[in-house]
Amino acid sequence: MSKILGVLGGMGPLATVDFLQKLIEETPARRDQDHVPVIAYSVPQIPERPPAITGNGESPLPQMLAGVQALKRAGASAIAIACNTAYYWHDALAAQGGLPILHIADAACAALAPQASQRIGLIATDGTIAAGFYQSRLQSRGVQCLLSSAEDHSTLIVPAIACVKRNELAQAHALAVAAARHLLDQGAQAIILGCTEIPLAIEHQPSDVARHCVDATRALARECVQWYRGG
Amino acid sequence: MSKILGVLGGMGPLATVDFLQKLIEETPARRDQDHVPVIAYSVPQIPERPPAITGNGESPLPQMLAGVQALKRAGASAIAIACNTAYYWHDALAAQGGLPILHIADAACAALAPQASQRIGLIATDGTIAAGFYQSRLQSRGVQCLLSSAEDHSTLIVPAIACVKRNELAQAHALAVAAARHLLDQGAQAIILGCTEIPLAIEHQPSDVARHCVDATRALARECVQWYRGG
Repeated sequence: MSKILGVLGGMGPLATVDFLQKLIEETPARRDQDHVPVIAYSVPQIPERPPAITGNGESPLPQMLAGVQALKRAGASAIAIACNTAYYWHDALAAQGGLPILHIADAACAALAPQASQRIGLIATDGTIAAGFYQSRLQSRGVQCLLSSAEDHSTLIVPAIACVKRNELAQAHALAVAAARHLLDQGAQAIILGCTEIPLAIEHQPSDVARHCVDATRALARECVQWYRGG
Repeated sequence: MSKILGVLGGMGPLATVDFLQKLIEETPARRDQDHVPVIAYSVPQIPERPPAITGNGESPLPQMLAGVQALKRAGASAIAIACNTAYYWHDALAAQGGLPILHIADAACAALAPQASQRIGLIATDGTIAAGFYQSRLQSRGVQCLLSSAEDHSTLIVPAIACVKRNELAQAHALAVAAARHLLDQGAQAIILGCTEIPLAIEHQPSDVARHCVDATRALARECVQWYRGG
C-alpha cells in the first residue's frame, strides 16, 4: 500500500468535512483513483481546545493521541489536523504518535502573496493566539501580525465559531465578515483565517473581504496534495 | 469508548464527503460533542464496481474488505458504505469483516412516502441494477420498480456519474434531471437516487424533479444517526 493521509478531525465535524472537500477540490483528478487516499478520524467527543490552552480546561491531548494512533493502526502514513488550535499539541503528537504531521501554519504562510509583506491580520481562537505558532512564523518572515481587538474577539469571532458549530452559517457569515473588515480597516494587507470554522463562515456568501483572506484549511489541503503527489 | 461509525468510502471521494455532510445535517446537535463519532476510510485506489458485477472487471472485494478491517482496527463498531453499488458485496463484507453493515437500500426504502406505493423509479449504476437489491426490496413491498431505458442509462446516467467524479456538477445536473424527468413521465410516484453520485448532480441546482426524489445517501445518514443515538 502506498501513502495514505490520516486526517485528525472532529474539532469540529463540519470543519473536517470542509477540509476533505477542499482536498478534493485541490486535487487534479479525472477519475476516482487520482484522488488522495485518506482516512479521517472525526470523533468530536473530546475536550474543547481553547480552554485547555488558556489554562481552564481538561487537555484534549490523550484523545488526540488516541486519534493519531487509530489512524496509524488503520494505515495512515502522515497526519493533517483539521483544526488550527489543535496544532498547539503538534510537537507532542508528532513525538508520541509516531507519524509526521503536516503543519497548517506553514501551509497558510506559504499561501500568502509575496506583496503581503508588511502587516497580516489573523483570525483565530484565543487558544491559537496564545499558542503563538502563527505569530512566530510571520515574525520570522519580518511580517507584523495584526490581531482583532478583545471586543471584536468576544463579540464577533467567538460567536461566529459557535454559529458554525451549530450549522447557523448566515449568522456566522455576518459576524466573521465584520471581524475581517475591521482588520482590513486597520491596514492588514491580507488576513489568515486561522480557525477551521471561519472559512466556512466567510465563504457562506460572497463578500468584499473574501479576496483578502487566506484560508488555512485550503492551504493545508493543497500541502497534503503536494505531499501525496510529491514522491 | 462508545459506538463509532465506520464509513467505507472513496467510491468516489466526493460522494463520501457528501455522506459525511449529510450525517452532520441529519444530527440534532448544539455543539461538536453531540455529533456522531465517525472514522471514514476513503481510499479510491480500488477497482470500479459496476464492471466487476456485470462480469468484465477485477473484484473490489479484497480492497473493500481491507477497508472494513482498517476501520475495525481503528475502533469502528458498525459500517456504512458510501456507495450503493458496493452493497453488492454486503453479505461477504459483513461475514468476513466482522462488523455489522447498515444497508443503504433498507434506509432508502424506509424513506419512501407511504403514498408512493405503486410505482417507484430507480436511478442507479448497471452494477446496482444487476445486483437487484433495490428491486427485491421494492417487490417485497408490492411496489413496481421502474428502470430507465437502456438509452437513458448510457446517454444520461452513466455520463452524469462520470461528470460528478470529475467535479463537473452543472453538466451532471442537466443529465441527471433529464433521466429523472423521463421516469416521472412514465408514471413513477417517486425516484430512488440509488447511486451516491446522483444526489450530488440533482442537488447542484434547484429543479422540478427534486421533490420527487429520495436520496439514498441522506436516508443512510439518517439511519446511522438513529443507530448512534438508539441505545
